[in-house]
Amino acid sequence: MIDAGAVIAQLRATEGRSGGRREAWRDPWAAERERLDELARATVSDVVIERDAFANTWYVLGGESEETILVHSHSDCVPGGGWLDGILGVHAGLGVLAALAREPRRPRTVAVVDWADEEGTRFGRSLMGSSAATGALSAEELADLTAEDGAAAREVVSGYGFDVAALGTPSPRLADVVAATELHIEQGPALERQGRSVGAVSGCLGVRRRRIAFAGTAGHAGALAMADRQDPVRAAATFIAAICQRAEDVSGLATVGRVQSEPMIATAVAARCELTLDLRHRELGPLDALAERARALAESSRCPATIVDLYRQEPVRFDPDLVQAAAAAAGGSGEPLVSGPLHDSAALAQADIPTVMLFVPSIGGISHTRAEDTAEDDLAAGIKSLHKLVSALTNRS
Amino acid sequence: MIDAGAVIAQLRATEGRSGGRREAWRDPWAAERERLDELARATVSDVVIERDAFANTWYVLGGESEETILVHSHSDCVPGGGWLDGILGVHAGLGVLAALAREPRRPRTVAVVDWADEEGTRFGRSLMGSSAATGALSAEELADLTAEDGAAAREVVSGYGFDVAALGTPSPRLADVVAATELHIEQGPALERQGRSVGAVSGCLGVRRRRIAFAGTAGHAGALAMADRQDPVRAAATFIAAICQRAEDVSGLATVGRVQSEPMIATAVAARCELTLDLRHRELGPLDALAERARALAESSRCPATIVDLYRQEPVRFDPDLVQAAAAAAGGSGEPLVSGPLHDSAALAQADIPTVMLFVPSIGGISHTRAEDTAEDDLAAGIKSLHKLVSALTNRS
Repeated sequence: MIDAGAVIAQLRATEGRSGGRREAWRDPWAAERERLDELARATVSDVVIERDAFANTWYVLGGESEETILVHSHSDCVPGGGWLDGILGVHAGLGVLAALAREPRRPRTVAVVDWADEEGTRFGRSLMGSSAATGALSAEELADLTAEDGAAAREVVSGYGFDVAALGTPSPRLADVVAATELHIEQGPALERQGRSVGAVSGCLGVRRRRIAFAGTAGHAGALAMADRQDPVRAAATFIAAICQRAEDVSGLATVGRVQSEPMIATAVAARCELTLDLRHRELGPLDALAERARALAESSRCPATIVDLYRQEPVRFDPDLVQAAAAAAGGSGEPLVSGPLHDSAALAQADIPTVMLFVPSIGGISHTRAEDTAEDDLAAGIKSLHKLVSALTNRS
Repeated sequence: MIDAGAVIAQLRATEGRSGGRREAWRDPWAAERERLDELARATVSDVVIERDAFANTWYVLGGESEETILVHSHSDCVPGGGWLDGILGVHAGLGVLAALAREPRRPRTVAVVDWADEEGTRFGRSLMGSSAATGALSAEELADLTAEDGAAAREVVSGYGFDVAALGTPSPRLADVVAATELHIEQGPALERQGRSVGAVSGCLGVRRRRIAFAGTAGHAGALAMADRQDPVRAAATFIAAICQRAEDVSGLATVGRVQSEPMIATAVAARCELTLDLRHRELGPLDALAERARALAESSRCPATIVDLYRQEPVRFDPDLVQAAAAAAGGSGEPLVSGPLHDSAALAQADIPTVMLFVPSIGGISHTRAEDTAEDDLAAGIKSLHKLVSALTNRS
C-alpha cells in the first residue's frame, strides 16, 4: 500500500519552503532538488540517485530485469505558480518507489525522474530536460536561447550541471524504458465538470509558440491623423483580436500571455509592440492552418512584423495499451482526456517510448497561479491510481 | 535684431549636455535650468530671475508699464525625446529678451517663463507648472498623483522647490500678463506638407486621458476553451482595435502608448492587462462622445475594467486678435493651424489670458523621439517671427 497522506504532507512542506519560487535554473529550485534527494534516501531502501548529463535526476529502484518502468514529472514551476503543477508527480513517484521498495519482489526496474525545466519560462523553451534526454534538443537550438535579461541559456544551465557537449546523445537509461507514466494536475476544467477524481490521458494538443514584434513610427499622441499612423500597439491589438477569434472558430487555443509596448509613454505613439503567441490544437492540420493564418495576419499588418519561432510540438497520441491500463487503474469510468497543456510525456512519446498520463482535477480549472488547487481526496485518489498502474506494469514481465 | 544663430547654437549645446534626459523632477533637468539662469544673466542686461511657488522660472525684463507680454515654453522633455520640443521656446524667448534689452525703450514688461513639467511623463499629469500657476491644479489632484515606481508626486516635486501649500493661489505676476506667446515645433506634418516655415496656431485639440486595466482569470495556455476564458489581453486588444477605429471614423485621435500584461508568461493566460488611452478631438461634442464610447466599450468587456481618469483638457481656442498678429509676424500666408499636442498655452488660454502660439515644421511630423528635427532655416524663421510678434506686442501700449 502507498501512504498517500505522507505524499500530500511532503507537498505541503515543499509549498511552505519554496512555493511559487521554483523557476528552473534558479537557486530555490536547486535547493528543493537537494531536499528531494534527501527524501528519497530517507524513504526508499536501496535507491540509486543519479543526475544525468542534462540535470535530470533519476531515482532508480533495481528489479529482476533491467526493463524499466518510468514514473516522471518535474519539480520546477512557473514564477508565482501553484503547489501541485509538476511537483505532485515527483512526490507521488517517490511515494510509489517507497511502496514498491517494501514489496518482496520486483520483476522490473522502476525509475522516478525529475526532469529539469519543464515550464520553459526563463528561456521560452518548454520540456528542456526531457527533450535533451531523448536527443530532441540540439546544441544549435540551445545556443539560440536567451532570457529576457539577455542571459544565454547555454551559460546559465551549465552552472546547474547541464553538459551542453552531451546534447544529441540520449540519456542511457532511457533505452531500458518499456513504459512511461506521469501523474499531473489537469490544469483545465474537464474532470471537475464530469465529477471524476482521476482520468487517463490519451494525448496532448500540438503547440506552435512564437515571439512577434510589430515596429511602428513613434510620434506625438496629438499628431498625425489615425489613417496616416504606423501605430504598433494598434497593429498588435488588431492581430491579437483576429487570431483569438480564429482560434475560437476552429476549436483551437490562442494565448497572448506577454504583450508590452516600447517606450511606455502615455502621450506618444509607441515605437514597438512585442508579444508572445501560443497556439494549440489537437489535430496537426488545423494547428498548422492556424499558425499559417497567424503569420499571414502579422505579415499583412501596416506595421512590419518580426516573427521568431520559440517552440513547436506536434499533437501527441499516447500508447493505446497503456491508456487502457491507466484507465483501469483510474477506476475505468469516463473517456480518456486530451491534455491542453504540454508535458514531458509528449517528449517521451515523440521518442517512441510507450507513454501514458493520469490527471487529477484542478479546482476551477485554474493553474499556473497561486490559486491552483486540487481536493485532498482527489490527490489521494490520483496517487493511489499511479501506484496501482506502476505496480501492474512492474509485475507484467 | 535677434541673433537666431546664437539661439540655435545654445540649443545644440543643450542637446550635447542633456539631450533626451530632461524629464521633469529629475536632476539633469534641474541642472539644465541652472544653466539657463547663467545664460540669462550673461546675455540679458538687467534681467530679474525668479522661481515662483511652483518651480516655474520667470526671466523678467521690466518696461515702462507693468503690463506684461509673456514668452513661454518648457525645458523638460519626454525620456528619450528630441532636441527641440519645449526647449526651443525657452531659448528663443531668452534670445528675444536679449534683443529687447538692447532696445532704447520698452513700453511694456516682457517675461520669459520656463514652466515646470509640461510633459507629465512621470506622474501622468501634463502642464503641471502652468496649471499650478493659473490656479487650475488643486492640492487634491496633486495628492492623487503617483509615478510608476510608486513615488508620490507631492513628495518628489517638493524636493525641487514646488510649494504644495501654495496650490490654488495663482502666481502673482500672471495678473499683469496682457498677452502670452509660445514658439514650439509643430510635432505634426501640416507645415511641412504645405511648404511653410512658420505658422500661427489658433487653438489646441481637447484631450481625455485614462488608465484602463482589464482583470482576467489567469490560467494555463493549454486549458479552457476560448469561449470559456476571461483573457484580459484579448479584452484589451479588442478594446484597442475598436476605439482606434472609432477615433479614425470621427476624425479624432486615439493613442495607446502604454500596454502591458501581467504576469508576463508566454504559457499562461494573463491575470491583468493595463493600458493608457489618450483621446483627442478639436470639438468638445465629438470628444466627449468618443470618451463615452471608450467607457462603454471597456465596461462591456467580458473582463472587468477599472478606469482611472488621468487628465482632461477641453478644446482650446486662442485669442483671435493675437492669432491675427501672430499670422502677420509669421509672414501672413496660410491658414492658422490647430495643435494636436497639448501645450502650456492651453492652460493659460483656459485661465482667460489672451494667448497665441507659433509653430515651426517638424521634419516627417516626428517628435517625442531622438529623430525629432527641424531644418535650420525654419528654426531661424520661427525665432525671428517670435521676436517680431513680441516686439509688436511690447510696443502696442
